[in-house]
Order: sequence, then C-alpha cells, then structure tokens
Amino acid sequence: MYLTEAKINFVSNHSMFELLFQKFDEKVSLSEEEKELCKSFFIPKKLRKKQWLLQEGDVCKYAAFVEKGLLRSYTINEKGTEHIMQFAFEGWWISDQFSFLTGEPSGYNIDALENCELLLLTRQAQDEMLERIPKLERYFRIIIQNSLIATQKRLASSRQSAEEKYNELIKSCPDTLPKRLPQHMLASFLGLTPETLSRVRKKMTLKKKQYVEDKA
Amino acid sequence: MYLTEAKINFVSNHSMFELLFQKFDEKVSLSEEEKELCKSFFIPKKLRKKQWLLQEGDVCKYAAFVEKGLLRSYTINEKGTEHIMQFAFEGWWISDQFSFLTGEPSGYNIDALENCELLLLTRQAQDEMLERIPKLERYFRIIIQNSLIATQKRLASSRQSAEEKYNELIKSCPDTLPKRLPQHMLASFLGLTPETLSRVRKKMTLKKKQYVEDKA
Repeated sequence: MYLTEAKINFVSNHSMFELLFQKFDEKVSLSEEEKELCKSFFIPKKLRKKQWLLQEGDVCKYAAFVEKGLLRSYTINEKGTEHIMQFAFEGWWISDQFSFLTGEPSGYNIDALENCELLLLTRQAQDEMLERIPKLERYFRIIIQNSLIATQKRLASSRQSAEEKYNELIKSCPDTLPKRLPQHMLASFLGLTPETLSRVRKKMTLKKKQYVEDKA
Repeated sequence: MYLTEAKINFVSNHSMFELLFQKFDEKVSLSEEEKELCKSFFIPKKLRKKQWLLQEGDVCKYAAFVEKGLLRSYTINEKGTEHIMQFAFEGWWISDQFSFLTGEPSGYNIDALENCELLLLTRQAQDEMLERIPKLERYFRIIIQNSLIATQKRLASSRQSAEEKYNELIKSCPDTLPKRLPQHMLASFLGLTPETLSRVRKKMTLKKKQYVEDKA
C-alpha cells in the first residue's frame, strides 16, 4: 500500500466534522448522540499538496470526504498520458468505488491538488456505521445518485465536440473550478489537448466579443 | 409525453413481481406485509419490441425494473447517429436518473429491443415507498452504487483502443449479450463503427487460433 499508517496524520480538531454534518443535515436528521457515534467511524487526515491518497494497482481502502482542499482522480495510459476522471472539492467525496467495494486493485490514482483536510471511511467502518445508523443509507443513496448523474453526463459528453465539452463544463462546474486549476488539468479532464482547449477558449472569447459588438 | 396513459397496458399477474422481490431479498429482508405494500407503488407494464419508454426532450417519469426482456438507452447526435449508453436485461433498472430526479427534459431515448415486462416507479411513488419502507434505502443505495461503477468503467474505457474496449466488454457483460444483440448495436455501445468492430473481432479470432496452434 502506498498510503502507510505512518503517513496518516491524525487530526484532533473536532471542527473537522463541520462540513460533513452540514451535508448529512441536508438529507437526514441525526441526533447529537448519532453524530458523536458517526465521528468514531472516520479517520481524520491531512494531506499536503501533491501527496497521494490512492495509487494505481493498490486497493482503494478509503472513501474520502473533503472538508478542505481539492483532489483529483486520474488514470495513466501506456504512453504515460494522464486522464483526469474527477475533481473533488469541499463537501464532495472521492474514491474508486469499484475497488473500494470489491477489494480489487484500482486502476485509478488519487492525489491532492491543494493542501487537504479529509475524513476517511474504510469499507468496514462504512458498513458498521450504516448498520448502527440506518438513516444514513438515505444520505449515501442520494450522494451516489448524484455521482451517477455526473458520471453519466461525462460519458455522454465524451462523444461531444471540443467546443460542446467546454460549454458543458463551464455550465456545470463550480464557479471556482477554472481559477483553482491549471489549464492542462482542465484539458485532461475534458479529454482535449491543452492546444485544443486554448483554441476553443479563444474562439469562445471571440464569439462573445462579436455578440457584444453586434448588440452595441 | 410520448408514453401516454392509453399506451400503458396494465398487467394483473402478480408473478410479475417475482424477480423484483428476489433482487430485494438479496439486499434487504422484507416481511410479506411490506412486499404487499411495495406492489402498490409499481405500475406493471408490457412493452412490445421497438416501443418507446422515453423519448429525448420528454421528462423521464419512470424508473423501470426489467422483469422480462431487454431495453437500451441511447442518444442521437446532430448527424443522426445513435450512441447506445446502456442495455438493461432481466433484473436491471433503466431510466435517465438526471431527468427522473430533477424533472428536466431528458437527452436520452429508451426503447425495447425485445418484448418486455416492466415494473414502473414514478419519482413520487419511489419517495413514498422509501418513506414507508426505509429498509429499501439500502437496496437502492447498492444498485445505484453498482450502476455508478459500471458507468465509471464505461467512462474510463471511452479513452481505450477499439481492441481494449471489446475485450473489456466480453469480460464484463452477461454471456447472453452478444447473442441477443445485433452487431451494429454492440458497435454503437462501444463507440465503434460496425466495420471497426468486425475488424477487431476478426483479429481476436485469429489471435485465439494462433494461440491454440502454438499450444498444439
């Protein structure tokens, strides 16, 4: 395993659960006792920028909730090219669900693009937590549902033109995404070369300018 | 709406719930009373081969459980080319989750590739069923999880070569898939032209033959 116990920095600060409980509260109603119980199932962890959470070939031991920071999951093909599959911001989860659930080695890498504060959940801890607090089934059903929708959209867009892909992205992503990410990562996420992305962006800017001039 | 009430053929046969309850039983334990209650939330429906369940531009009103038959969901691009996103066999669910959950018009079409027996669930019926039988949250969480894994795999494979895609498919699909589907639909699912699929299959057959001869 790439992520050894020695690398896990335990964090004692209980305010680390603030965002998680806020997200829980949006979907289910937990008592204070249940929240306290919840905390015992998570492993708080800080990750510095560029540190790994998961490396291809390892089993994905953790589903990670992002309290602070930004991570990405990606594959690397035979030629060494990275393909970004997902970004995860504050309030999002990231893992390789296939590997997490089956115990099979993962084909994905997950690393931190900014300094991160995470809450990690093992498969066993998740099962136990859901058994002790069945209400949370609802929360996980809904977040997985949202994740499914996002992935289906990505799959449909993989057959779109470069311009359509970029339009789809700026419509659907959080406003902060382009500011927090280098261009080549946006390109990788869209399955475009940085040159194509740059060309598309220029074209879009020109179109916008033309539109403003026509209006004037 | 394409799917009008007049087109819904109600089916009285209660054995239609056999497979659904078998699938429920694999994940959660329901009493006979709960099963009876369940039935009241579903609309049994028969669909003949080539009939539609959902047409692009309409809101996806139903999540459909397949008791018998085979359906597909697909998009059509500006040039009129179909791209198959998902097949659904006996025991699977099919819908456009995005449209089903948000009430936004769908970008997908769903139609029957064989005569089908379906159990339809509206969003409202699903919500009410989950409220009355919260145990079922677990069942839906798990099936959505499996759907997410399958979609993530499809997304990752959209960047693979034709040969890798085909290999992935024959490893992961039910054995009956290639027999029940015309070649051009398999090609569309894989994002290949029928010619490329045919070339890949020939190459694979040759490789297999060569392997057998080398072994002999």
